Amino acid sequence: MSKVHAYAAQSAGAELEKFEYELGEIQPEDVEIKVEFCGICHSDISMLDNEWGMSAYPLVAGHEVAGEIVALGDKVTHLKVGQKIGLGWYSKSCMVCESCMDGDHNLCLNNESTIAGRHGGFADRVRCHSSWAIPIPDALPLEKTGPLFCGGITVFNPIVQYDVKPTDRVGVVGIGGLGHMAIQFLNKWGCHVTAFTSSENKADEARTMGAHAVVNSRDKNDLEKIANSLDFLLVTVNVPLEWALYINALKAKGRLHFVGAVLEPIPVGAFPLIMRQRSISGTPLGSPETTKKMLEFCVHHDIVPQTELFPMSKVNDAIKHLNAGKARYRIILQNDF
Amino acid sequence: MSKVHAYAAQSAGAELEKFEYELGEIQPEDVEIKVEFCGICHSDISMLDNEWGMSAYPLVAGHEVAGEIVALGDKVTHLKVGQKIGLGWYSKSCMVCESCMDGDHNLCLNNESTIAGRHGGFADRVRCHSSWAIPIPDALPLEKTGPLFCGGITVFNPIVQYDVKPTDRVGVVGIGGLGHMAIQFLNKWGCHVTAFTSSENKADEARTMGAHAVVNSRDKNDLEKIANSLDFLLVTVNVPLEWALYINALKAKGRLHFVGAVLEPIPVGAFPLIMRQRSISGTPLGSPETTKKMLEFCVHHDIVPQTELFPMSKVNDAIKHLNAGKARYRIILQNDF
Repeated sequence: MSKVHAYAAQSAGAELEKFEYELGEIQPEDVEIKVEFCGICHSDISMLDNEWGMSAYPLVAGHEVAGEIVALGDKVTHLKVGQKIGLGWYSKSCMVCESCMDGDHNLCLNNESTIAGRHGGFADRVRCHSSWAIPIPDALPLEKTGPLFCGGITVFNPIVQYDVKPTDRVGVVGIGGLGHMAIQFLNKWGCHVTAFTSSENKADEARTMGAHAVVNSRDKNDLEKIANSLDFLLVTVNVPLEWALYINALKAKGRLHFVGAVLEPIPVGAFPLIMRQRSISGTPLGSPETTKKMLEFCVHHDIVPQTELFPMSKVNDAIKHLNAGKARYRIILQNDF
Repeated sequence: MSKVHAYAAQSAGAELEKFEYELGEIQPEDVEIKVEFCGICHSDISMLDNEWGMSAYPLVAGHEVAGEIVALGDKVTHLKVGQKIGLGWYSKSCMVCESCMDGDHNLCLNNESTIAGRHGGFADRVRCHSSWAIPIPDALPLEKTGPLFCGGITVFNPIVQYDVKPTDRVGVVGIGGLGHMAIQFLNKWGCHVTAFTSSENKADEARTMGAHAVVNSRDKNDLEKIANSLDFLLVTVNVPLEWALYINALKAKGRLHFVGAVLEPIPVGAFPLIMRQRSISGTPLGSPETTKKMLEFCVHHDIVPQTELFPMSKVNDAIKHLNAGKARYRIILQNDF
């Protein structure tokens, strides 16, 4: 059994260094993937820096994997060696709890995360339970699909969960790795899409990606002008904003939905919810089946993330580029081990 | 045209005094109701005390009216004089906005409230637009129906709006005027109902009304024990509680729903929403058509509010009784003008 070659942080915030580890015998329901490409998500940085207090070192980040199956446990019969496969934030579900049995494997309380307490995709190989090994359609360019398995499905999932209608007026707050995919999805979903950003450059790019209007996310007057106008407002940022103005932007029965892990509590007034029957909610990424639906939608509508390619050996440069806010819009590492 | 006899507050917090006023010519789409009974809702107290900063004096409160039509505007053809009728928080909608045209008259931004800027039901007569004059089925006891038009529909409406399922496990926070009706509705809806109260007496009464379990609303251990267990948690109180524990009591896809006008902002963590796909929301009372559905449900299941009767001339005593927390569970004033 050969060793896995990876890049790991030895402590919170440290530069990544080469690291080798043994995977051991493959489990009966597991899949081993040769990593060809792996996206860098903000959650990788949060985990590398132990922002959420749940990191264990050495830590191999990377949970937007696109690669090829190189080995299968002997109980896996629905996948085959050589198949192109994607792996996202979750690597295993219990398969028997209420959520799993309802098809909501993404909500399983016993879920294993690809990079928490085990090693992820900044490596030449990674394993997962077969339920989270998602086949990649041939029509999608492999070098751009990795981000769909975390950032992409994170913003696609709520559109499905809350039954967003093509006739809805929707908004996307934050035009980054997640937001730029959300704009594309919602445009092709048929919605009128408003992008919220404080960056002038991104305003133009958001229009190119499919936004029909742009609002300055930090301009009080701009936000007040759109009061009572949106059915669905998707927040992809993780910084505090003037949430009362965003709630106020919702029309009757509108929803303010969080997929960005805003750490500061959001102060919610009961009155603005009650008077207009508004909701506030959050979702993690989607289930394996919703992920497959998203991939079909991407094929049908030619949707791919906008990416920048770095060799995996330049992972530290790539992280610096991301942390400087320069990524347009998702960085992909190409395995060069 | 005879004068209306009423009880009004002349200033915030003042005792109510006899007050007379002219209604003028009836408008073509209006209905005039002879008040037979009128419930006292906490919102009446909030308005009398100008807690929401929108009161105008002299103020005639009362928006849980049960009575009889004594006059009709000449364009009202679907109602008739002598018909038993209920009137709640809203007395008029614009009938032409998006919400009204969608059947959501309760969300109309131009709604007129029965006791804001006009005079309500602590009187011998009151008027409203015909859309909010709801016929009372003969099978319901008139002296107990008034509270259904505000407190009752306020808790019935979210059950309909959010499609609560008979298989759901639900909770009701606060066993008062609203909560005691919510327990009855949800029990007959088929749900497993948990009542949340800090009062020992009310715990037993809640069980009698249909609660299958009772949790101490202020006991941290009690609340932690029910983590991840509820689909729908209806908050009828207007005082701050440890909301994080209530959010934590929701299972995957669960909803914490506010109908009580909690004034302090509710601090909401994005993470507890995201990880379990939870929602937080609020609704005002329901539409006229949802109110009619509720009345049919009440007839079908023998649901009425538990009430205490005071003559209207004793309105100040009744308000003291309510403010002392002694009402079990809704006070009704009987017109004795």
